[in-house]
Parts: sequence; structure tokens; C-alpha cells
Amino acid sequence: MRPAPGSKRVEIVGLRDGELGTRHETIAVEEPLELRLDGGALAVAMRTPGHDVELAAGFVVTEGIVGDFGAVCAIAHCDETRNTIEIRTEPGAAGVRAPEVRHFIASSSCGICGKATLDEARRLAPALRPDGMRVGLGVLEALPDRLRAEQRLFDETGALHAAALFDSTGALLCAREDIGRHNAVDKVVGWAALESRLPLSQTILLVSGRLGFEIAQKALVAGIPVLAAISGPSSLAVELARASGMTLVAFLRGASLNVYAGAERIANPDRARV
Amino acid sequence: MRPAPGSKRVEIVGLRDGELGTRHETIAVEEPLELRLDGGALAVAMRTPGHDVELAAGFVVTEGIVGDFGAVCAIAHCDETRNTIEIRTEPGAAGVRAPEVRHFIASSSCGICGKATLDEARRLAPALRPDGMRVGLGVLEALPDRLRAEQRLFDETGALHAAALFDSTGALLCAREDIGRHNAVDKVVGWAALESRLPLSQTILLVSGRLGFEIAQKALVAGIPVLAAISGPSSLAVELARASGMTLVAFLRGASLNVYAGAERIANPDRARV
Repeated sequence: MRPAPGSKRVEIVGLRDGELGTRHETIAVEEPLELRLDGGALAVAMRTPGHDVELAAGFVVTEGIVGDFGAVCAIAHCDETRNTIEIRTEPGAAGVRAPEVRHFIASSSCGICGKATLDEARRLAPALRPDGMRVGLGVLEALPDRLRAEQRLFDETGALHAAALFDSTGALLCAREDIGRHNAVDKVVGWAALESRLPLSQTILLVSGRLGFEIAQKALVAGIPVLAAISGPSSLAVELARASGMTLVAFLRGASLNVYAGAERIANPDRARV
Repeated sequence: MRPAPGSKRVEIVGLRDGELGTRHETIAVEEPLELRLDGGALAVAMRTPGHDVELAAGFVVTEGIVGDFGAVCAIAHCDETRNTIEIRTEPGAAGVRAPEVRHFIASSSCGICGKATLDEARRLAPALRPDGMRVGLGVLEALPDRLRAEQRLFDETGALHAAALFDSTGALLCAREDIGRHNAVDKVVGWAALESRLPLSQTILLVSGRLGFEIAQKALVAGIPVLAAISGPSSLAVELARASGMTLVAFLRGASLNVYAGAERIANPDRARV
């Protein structure tokens, strides 16, 4: 079987049933992608090639580089190796900034802390307003299998993160894989930006692994009301969700799950009410 | 049970056996740590509090901020919140640099690529020389259980990475946990730096998750000859290991494992020879 783009075959020495032997294995491709903004260096992402334009689009949205995606007029590869992406914004567009360092480094004379980090996140994105969105428990329970079905590179390599966006009925909108968990989220958000679907109200974002602050921040900036993870959340991710009106579900594993914030969006007509 | 430092209890809504109910869960703490070098801002790491001095020591080593750890004269918390660490180097010490941007951004006019990234890694650390180190298959097979036994915060939270350093007989030297996989490695390398054990020849580093380029680069800079992971490696991690004489073992799961590079260090007198 030919490996999919994003994976490659390598010769290895494997131990199976007590015997060492030469075999071939498929591994996940990791390559640097340089992001350039209006001619200047912006960032380097170690990513799995594929959906690079979406990755760049998502990155400038979720990192607050552009306040309005309408300010972006072009995103394209600009080298033969396809490892450099140029992002062009409308001349004079408001709200475009290429951050040299995180804002909270500059303002940390008070001592950096979780609160300063939350304040910075809220500067990037306002809290979500009550939206009347309801997600049934049955919808949530079905999501892990739907994400798993989209993890084609993971099936080959065992070493890729995934993120998937669903509507409130659990219908899949977009799923992406990457060696970097943040990249997978950026690719999904970038897909939505390019489809003019931002902000992502009435959607659910599911990530394959653990859920830290930066993932929660990216989801908030994209306007995603329900964030879910197969594994566990960090304290700061939970605090950000609680402070910003986001629903955070983790350890979502079929028939068991934990709701760490925003339980009012979880509906279950057939069982106990939250 | 009181949560360990690095974890905290939160009230959640949990679904178990078809019933939703309020419960308490222990989650992993994530807080920003600002690293300052000789009075200037260096980096912000989102980390699990604990072993912060080790984290800072490991960061300046594995990121090539100091070429020789002897150039560091003090590392200490410098604020009441304990979220800022000041690193002081000897005035006039050679080889201290606070990189503004990754070197390969500046030199990417040729088009950034995996090869440029490998070149940058080799600029940070020379290839390992043949060292005669041999690790028995039985030693490798026993490591995952030894790492697992040290993952106390993971037991509580289900959401932390871990890294552990062993000698060539499989004896544990140091194990650390963190919400960030790179931080766990930096804490282990920092422990070694503070114990004057660098370079880490004749050692094995095992990481709990996947193995990307940056982890391999950190291990190389620390002089670690054998790098192992419970899950899968990326293409660039394998390429770096092959280019620099490092042994890379992944999918290390008891009786099965894959050797992606440097199989000459794997010894098995009782079974087939590599």
C-alpha cells in the first residue's frame, strides 16, 4: 500500500515475538513550514505537510494576527519546496499585527500568572454570549468514533493528533490531522475561515488528545462554543472556559464524559437534566 | 486524598452509567512560567509548577542558549507568584545567546526545509561519536513499567506527559512530569545540568508520548545516545537520529519495539543479533 501524503515508509529493526528483524514501517512526516506575513517572517511551524494554506489561515486567526479574516487577501506557497507560505493582507487593513513577543511578557512587571494569561486571552477574544445552543448527550457520545474514522494518517503511523469540527447535531464539518496538536486545530479553523464560516457559532470542536490552555484559547478566538477532548484538560483551559462562557467536555469516551464548564449547553431529554 | 502539587480539585458534571451528576475531579495544573536571562525576557513556558529551576536549567541547555552550563551562575524564582525565573550568567561568559528568532528563519532565502532544520540542529550539537554503549533488549522492555510507576500526577489527572532518564542497565536516574512534553524533557536535562552530569553519555531517555523533532534535538544537545518513546516518531526525528548517531526506539511497549536508528547499540546475547 502506498503511504498517504503526510506519511512515509522507512526501514527499521523491529522486535516481535522475541525476534529482531528488519521491517518497513510507515511514519508521520514532520517538516518545518515558514509563515511569512506581508514579506516579513512571522513564525515557523513544525507540521505535517498538507492543508498548508488552511494552517496559515487558521494560525493568523487563532493567534490574533488578524482581527478580521477579511483583511487577508492572499495565502499561497511561495517556494519550490512548498515549505514557505506567504500571507498578504489588504494595505492599510485595521487590526493586523505581527506580535514580536507575547503581550504578557511586556506587561509582566506585576509578576506573570495565570490571571495575566487569562486577561491576555480575553484581549484576543471576548467572552461568548449566551447562544441558546444545546447539545444532546447522545450527540457527544457519538463524536469519538466519528473522529476516529477520519484519522487515516493515525491508522498508518500511530503518531498524529487530530481535530474535528461538528455542527450541534453531530454532523462532521471538517477533520484534520497533524503531528502538532495546535496545527490540527489551526487547519480546522483555517478551513472555516476560507469558507467564510467564522465565527464558528453552534459548533463543537473535538481534539484527539489532551486539552491545554492554548487549544482552548484558539477555540475561543474562533468563537467555538463547545470544546471537547478525548483526554484530560489543564487547569488553565478549564479556567479560560469558565471565564468566557465556553462549554468544556473532556475524557469523552463513549458512554462516560466530564463537563468542566458550561454544562447548561448539555441537553439530555431522556435522562437526568443538568 | 489531597492532590499533589501540580494538580488541583475541581467540581464537574460527570456522566457515568447513563446518569449525570456533580462530582469532583483532579486536573493537571498549567501556569505560565516566564524565563528571564540576565534581566531580559527569554521565553514563556506553559508548564506544570514544580521543578521550575530544573526546567529553566534544561531549557537554556537544550535550546542552545548556553553552550556550556558552567556559564550559568544562578537560577532562582524572582517574584512572589513563583511564576518568574531569573537565569544569571557569568559576565563575559562565551557562548551565551538569547535567540530572537530561530536561526533558520533568518537564513531561509533558499527555502526552508527539513534539511535546513537538520543543519540548524547540528549547529546546536555535533553528532554523537561511537561510544561502545550497549543496551540489552531486556533492559529496554522493562523501561515502560518503570516510567509508569513514576507518573504520579498522571495517575491523578490523566493529562500529563513524562520523561525519565535511565543508565544503560535500566536504573532510574530521574523522572519528571509536565503538561508540556518538552518541559518534561527539559526538567530531566536540567536536573542533570544541576548535578553536573552533562553530557549525558551512557544514558537512555524515555518519553511517555510521541517523539517529534524538537524532543530529538533536545536529547542530542544533552548528549543522550539512546532516545525511546512509548508512541510513534516523526520523520524528522528519525532523520535527525540517523544523521547524528543517536539510537531511536519507539512504540516501546513491553515485548515489542521498533528501532528506527542506531540499532548497533541494541544488544541481545540471548536472541537474534541486530
